Amino acid sequence: MTDAPVVDELTPPVRTLMGPGPSDVHPRVLRAMGTPLVGHLDPVFLDVMNEVQELLRYTFRTDNQWTLPISGTGSAAMEAAFGNLVEPGDTVLVPSNGYFGHRMASMANRAGGEVVSVDAPWGEPLDPNDVRDAFETHQPEVFGFVHAETSTGVRQPAVSELTEIAHAHDAFVIADTVTSLGGVELRVDAWDIDIAYSSAQKCLSCPPGASPITLSDRAIDRILTRETPVRSWYLDLSLLEGYWGEDRSYHHTAPITNVYALREALRLVAEEGIERRWERHRRVARTLVSGMEDLGLDRYAAEEYWLPSLNTVRIPDEVDETALIDHLLSKYGIEIAAGLGDLAGEVLRIGCMGHSARPANVQYLLSALEESLNRS
Amino acid sequence: MTDAPVVDELTPPVRTLMGPGPSDVHPRVLRAMGTPLVGHLDPVFLDVMNEVQELLRYTFRTDNQWTLPISGTGSAAMEAAFGNLVEPGDTVLVPSNGYFGHRMASMANRAGGEVVSVDAPWGEPLDPNDVRDAFETHQPEVFGFVHAETSTGVRQPAVSELTEIAHAHDAFVIADTVTSLGGVELRVDAWDIDIAYSSAQKCLSCPPGASPITLSDRAIDRILTRETPVRSWYLDLSLLEGYWGEDRSYHHTAPITNVYALREALRLVAEEGIERRWERHRRVARTLVSGMEDLGLDRYAAEEYWLPSLNTVRIPDEVDETALIDHLLSKYGIEIAAGLGDLAGEVLRIGCMGHSARPANVQYLLSALEESLNRS
Repeated sequence: MTDAPVVDELTPPVRTLMGPGPSDVHPRVLRAMGTPLVGHLDPVFLDVMNEVQELLRYTFRTDNQWTLPISGTGSAAMEAAFGNLVEPGDTVLVPSNGYFGHRMASMANRAGGEVVSVDAPWGEPLDPNDVRDAFETHQPEVFGFVHAETSTGVRQPAVSELTEIAHAHDAFVIADTVTSLGGVELRVDAWDIDIAYSSAQKCLSCPPGASPITLSDRAIDRILTRETPVRSWYLDLSLLEGYWGEDRSYHHTAPITNVYALREALRLVAEEGIERRWERHRRVARTLVSGMEDLGLDRYAAEEYWLPSLNTVRIPDEVDETALIDHLLSKYGIEIAAGLGDLAGEVLRIGCMGHSARPANVQYLLSALEESLNRS
Repeated sequence: MTDAPVVDELTPPVRTLMGPGPSDVHPRVLRAMGTPLVGHLDPVFLDVMNEVQELLRYTFRTDNQWTLPISGTGSAAMEAAFGNLVEPGDTVLVPSNGYFGHRMASMANRAGGEVVSVDAPWGEPLDPNDVRDAFETHQPEVFGFVHAETSTGVRQPAVSELTEIAHAHDAFVIADTVTSLGGVELRVDAWDIDIAYSSAQKCLSCPPGASPITLSDRAIDRILTRETPVRSWYLDLSLLEGYWGEDRSYHHTAPITNVYALREALRLVAEEGIERRWERHRRVARTLVSGMEDLGLDRYAAEEYWLPSLNTVRIPDEVDETALIDHLLSKYGIEIAAGLGDLAGEVLRIGCMGHSARPANVQYLLSALEESLNRS
């Protein structure tokens, strides 16, 4: 304890990030991270906050007033959604078709909710008929679903059908858009989603630490009229609104630099145009998937619910996945990931997100994969 | 909603940050923020995590194994402390002598604790006799105190006396060291503190977003044998330990860039030497306080519990505090702050923290203050 540790200068190797996140950060965003700070109550920062909120509304395709970054990584935004909306005793319906539905269950439980689930196998989206049945059986107050399941590479299609069922039962809908925001078609208002949350380090290609959330007026009304306080002070949106809303009063210190970075990442979204950005992700990921199929790596998720930002492929019997992943990292500096949960040992997960969704990255990965597969 | 917002490049003005935080960030730390990312499960990042933990132990003056940054700003670390240690039904003793004791009460309440308080007026430290009386009356399981109260500029002296009382009653001690870590003498092990938490943007001069916490084995034992789950999934230390401990298993995505920055800020602490750093804060803040007294600004906190990192001075009757603060910001780019809570309108709060605790900053502030006071 007495001696000061001697720790060398930070010199991490250069990586090409094609895993489930973080993705490669755009140089402009990295540069924004190096900007000297102003105070979190400085009038200049209040303008920055307004700009970030406006850019987030554009990216979420919403007019929701309550659209802001939560001061933590994606799971903090997820907990803000469940922790604020769910009151003790509420019935909360969550999906069982992937890793993050299970996390929803854990958070809803800790918020005091009674968790019930709508079943679907890992690797498939929810069937609206199953959702309707679950609503009739359980009459939940809150329904969470995962728009883009990072553990399976499945995109939930027909979101409007799900929200329609929920609203017909007077329930609230929370959408996990961690791996879709800014990369895959997502329309919060048109699809009538009550709360959507996301992260910075996936399709926005921003370092993690400030995580977008948007809430409808209807959701906010419920939160502001809760009978019990939110169990987290840090994530209590009724207090956070004092800071991000019109008062701009002190709640906690915002992660100033992460907000700078998010602003720059969202400027890049606005400059590209959100729809063109969705199209780029589809186009680049299509090349990636075709190339992998040519190498004998079959897709895991079906075409109808393919998630361009996160591509799962089956691991051929003869391939040692750990050796493959390690080889790509150590020889090429390329990060891809193994399967998670039920899909551990079954699939590889290959991201194509934000600034990583570039032809150069895909070409490099495919040629490195080819060498690596022939080697094993 | 349809059109992409046009938002200009980020060009905040240059500030001299002499408020209650953030403080000026050292250029080396800013540069670290611009470092391209590796993945949060990359072996290289696991080494970075180890280094940060080792540097934090040095800075906290502890051998505690569980010493890590929480993925949020200081209030997240505070909530991690109370939310993990407090179980529903526990009696939690908190101080009433400043703003952050009240925040402790709010967090302890939300964790299910029964809050009682030990009284002391704002602007004074806790008297060990009052703490002893409160222990005898209430027999609390958990006792929180603020080592460096940012709202009043008061340093709690005689910390060992407080922890001794608590431990004689088999209670656990949580210390708020947000405004002391890395700037004011703090000895977690020698003073027998069970949990201490802090923030990055005060005396460590690092952008906020990853916030130090350290826990004794005794505190960890209590947390790992809780009867009920922690109410926050994001801040559940028993889950976080899977990531920061030996397993390095996925819990949530760490704020990679903030960890890079914290590493660099802590390297600067180690290079300077923690005791020399405490001494620098005292020396530079002494010049600041003397200079302010020469300008007719009397200290608010008494010498015996002066907090060099956060200096409170009384506002003379003839001075319009808002106009003064605004003038310093707009003409000189200097940030100082008004009073908070009971001290709103009574004091100015002037930080002298980390990279802001430099003679150049103090000289600049004093000359700007002199002009501003003569002007009003």
